Amino acid sequence: MTQVGSDHASSVTDDRSSWEVMQALLARGDVPALERYLQRLPSSETVRAVFRLSPEEQEKLLTLLPPERAADLIDDVPDTQAAELLDNLDPEEAASIVSEMQSDEAADVLAEMDRDDAEEILSLMDADEAADARQLIDYDPDTAGGLMITEFLSYPQSTYAADVVRDIGTRPGDYPLYYLQHIMVTGPGGRLLGSVGLSDIAFAGPGATLGEVAAPVDAVEAEMALEQLEEFFDARDTPVSPVTDGHGRLVGALRRRSVYDALAEKAEASYLKSQGIVGGDEFRSMPLAVRSGRRLSWLIVKIVLNMLSASVIALYEDTIAAAFALAVFLPIVSDMSGCSGYQAVAVSMREMALDIIKPSDVARVLVKEVALGLVTGTVLAVVLGGVAWAWKGNPWLGAVVGAALAANTLIAVGIGGVLPLLMKRLRLDPALAAGPVLTTITDTGGFFLVLSLAQLVLPALSG
Amino acid sequence: MTQVGSDHASSVTDDRSSWEVMQALLARGDVPALERYLQRLPSSETVRAVFRLSPEEQEKLLTLLPPERAADLIDDVPDTQAAELLDNLDPEEAASIVSEMQSDEAADVLAEMDRDDAEEILSLMDADEAADARQLIDYDPDTAGGLMITEFLSYPQSTYAADVVRDIGTRPGDYPLYYLQHIMVTGPGGRLLGSVGLSDIAFAGPGATLGEVAAPVDAVEAEMALEQLEEFFDARDTPVSPVTDGHGRLVGALRRRSVYDALAEKAEASYLKSQGIVGGDEFRSMPLAVRSGRRLSWLIVKIVLNMLSASVIALYEDTIAAAFALAVFLPIVSDMSGCSGYQAVAVSMREMALDIIKPSDVARVLVKEVALGLVTGTVLAVVLGGVAWAWKGNPWLGAVVGAALAANTLIAVGIGGVLPLLMKRLRLDPALAAGPVLTTITDTGGFFLVLSLAQLVLPALSG
Repeated sequence: MTQVGSDHASSVTDDRSSWEVMQALLARGDVPALERYLQRLPSSETVRAVFRLSPEEQEKLLTLLPPERAADLIDDVPDTQAAELLDNLDPEEAASIVSEMQSDEAADVLAEMDRDDAEEILSLMDADEAADARQLIDYDPDTAGGLMITEFLSYPQSTYAADVVRDIGTRPGDYPLYYLQHIMVTGPGGRLLGSVGLSDIAFAGPGATLGEVAAPVDAVEAEMALEQLEEFFDARDTPVSPVTDGHGRLVGALRRRSVYDALAEKAEASYLKSQGIVGGDEFRSMPLAVRSGRRLSWLIVKIVLNMLSASVIALYEDTIAAAFALAVFLPIVSDMSGCSGYQAVAVSMREMALDIIKPSDVARVLVKEVALGLVTGTVLAVVLGGVAWAWKGNPWLGAVVGAALAANTLIAVGIGGVLPLLMKRLRLDPALAAGPVLTTITDTGGFFLVLSLAQLVLPALSG
Repeated sequence: MTQVGSDHASSVTDDRSSWEVMQALLARGDVPALERYLQRLPSSETVRAVFRLSPEEQEKLLTLLPPERAADLIDDVPDTQAAELLDNLDPEEAASIVSEMQSDEAADVLAEMDRDDAEEILSLMDADEAADARQLIDYDPDTAGGLMITEFLSYPQSTYAADVVRDIGTRPGDYPLYYLQHIMVTGPGGRLLGSVGLSDIAFAGPGATLGEVAAPVDAVEAEMALEQLEEFFDARDTPVSPVTDGHGRLVGALRRRSVYDALAEKAEASYLKSQGIVGGDEFRSMPLAVRSGRRLSWLIVKIVLNMLSASVIALYEDTIAAAFALAVFLPIVSDMSGCSGYQAVAVSMREMALDIIKPSDVARVLVKEVALGLVTGTVLAVVLGGVAWAWKGNPWLGAVVGAALAANTLIAVGIGGVLPLLMKRLRLDPALAAGPVLTTITDTGGFFLVLSLAQLVLPALSG
């Protein structure tokens, strides 16, 4: 798919990777070949290639391409990067590209830019388009208003069928299917009355008005949150729903795919945060200082938490000095408890996602996890305690290590199971918060339990 | 939404949670009230309530409800649990419920049951439906064949438009919209020729044949994998696509929503595995022995890995005895490096998901991560080394701890960045494999670096 084959550009394709081909075509300024090449490139390859170009080459690429091709390209790139690409362009150039983008995409990208830069681009756009984009930017991005598009067909109920057919005929083509199957019909004050398909209009005869043929349609409100939108589309087969404001006025159209894309993006953001990418999106093409700064914003928090946990160890110098083997088991007990806790977190996250548990089910989850923790904690304690005993031939060492692991496992699964529920109740992101809180507790607990139990039986350990 | 209000069942609703209401209605055997109650309950509440009922109550519920209501309910429940619910029923009863389910749902649930139990239910179903279900079960669940449904309208090209309209009129109602908008047209040997909407057929006049009005349609192949299906639907707006076998024969219909649901499920499965739920799905309603066994299947692997890492510490007894403070810093160095490594894993997972990097980009990712590791490693080393120095007033301790953390951070981000790419190349799940491999390396590396560096300067440390 990356081979251009027999056409004009073939002399520069050969074995080279797609970004090198683009680089060569850019250097030659061969716009027609570049356009043809991009059209044949799968969008995944395009994204990779654009990321490999230098900022100057990226700028040249977007300037050389016709605005609608440049808009396609910007569409494929993640929003934060797209904003950066546009930022590097001449505002006139950027405005003509943004004008060619789907309204929701345009709003998403503009929302990622500085307010002033975005305003400059908007001021150079068609006034209607700019007003639409401003409205979309103002909605919370995870609501119907933030996800909707403003490209849809809508006519007042008094419009004659023949006029609709004629009007649609005058518009430039290339509508998606749903566009013609879901023509919105409005009543007084722009209130949504219903929807109708183009074929139904044609059926109805030229003298009928839209008000006569429109069928009632379910709509979502602009303020509705992502979870409600998911439920709405899960319960219906429609690819698109009208969006109304608080007064029932038609303000946009929400596509099913926009909702699913937003859900996937949200899940991904949670995953990134849970893995310690909390300072904002990162791409390896960003400057090293930005990447390092963002990663450090989390690592510095984490190292402070780690030092707090480990300070427990410092309190027990004499104990470790008397029984060196404890130093070997400290990290094992802490780490294993953390691992048990993560499992409980994951099961709670899943049961919450499937609506099997709610934040109010804390007591029930706790009972279930404590029962499980007694079993898994005992098994792990026997394994680790057995190894400790066998290694040093000291049953007391085995007892201390085993008892500490059993107790800390119980704490870990109990807390791990209920933490996501509590976080949700506090309106925090459960995926983000569960990690550091949990490990700090399991680390501290593990160190403390091993060392304090050891101190109780120190003569037997050091003997 | 959970209040039934003024109707017959209101006497048992009041302040009780929905599962208690269902329990009471079941105890009274009041089927009409139960049906009404379930219809008003949001599906999330239904799932929660069913999970809270005892197995006997669940059985009673499914037996009392008409099969189509029971099928709706089974649809809302995750597949593994749905399989268990059906397993507990009389096979006749189960067969009549499965017959009412959408073909893909039915196949998913039957695939979760023992082959013999599933066969028993299939043998009691209508022969055609059973054959469809068997075919779906045989496809890999993450392909078009495994995700498609067999409920769709299809006619040979020679069928007259009038006959199609008449035939559709005789079928029991309640089709989703796409069903009538995407009527498939087949040629010789059942090969897919195109598709047509009901309104186009009606337009065409009674004497036209489907072959004359059908428009070409893009189809997916039954063997196509989830990633390709995602690309297919991303590039199109259609809510449904025909599915063909290797010979171009029409075998099913694939809905866009099925593809997105499968993608979401796959992402979730990856998340669960990455958090240590590897023994299979877990619900807290499962027996304790099953839950404990599944969690232990991973914890036992993990404890062995932990003991291997910690065994490094055992080799350096004298070093720790001479400089106790090392015991405090061992877990910090290991844990912080693991944390840095996870960040690199997350960025690679994301860039892979966005098609910005491919498995062949190992060298480029490594260069980027090493550059970043030098910066973050140095910063973290200064922080931790500074604390170590200040605590014990010994610059050598700070140097050992700092150098070990810097070096281990470099190793962690390098390995963390490329591991997902290597895993993908080896066709392993990157999310699953990166965790244990990475932590075992960062733990072992951390312990080894701290202690071996310490040994080099032992006189200065213990002095």
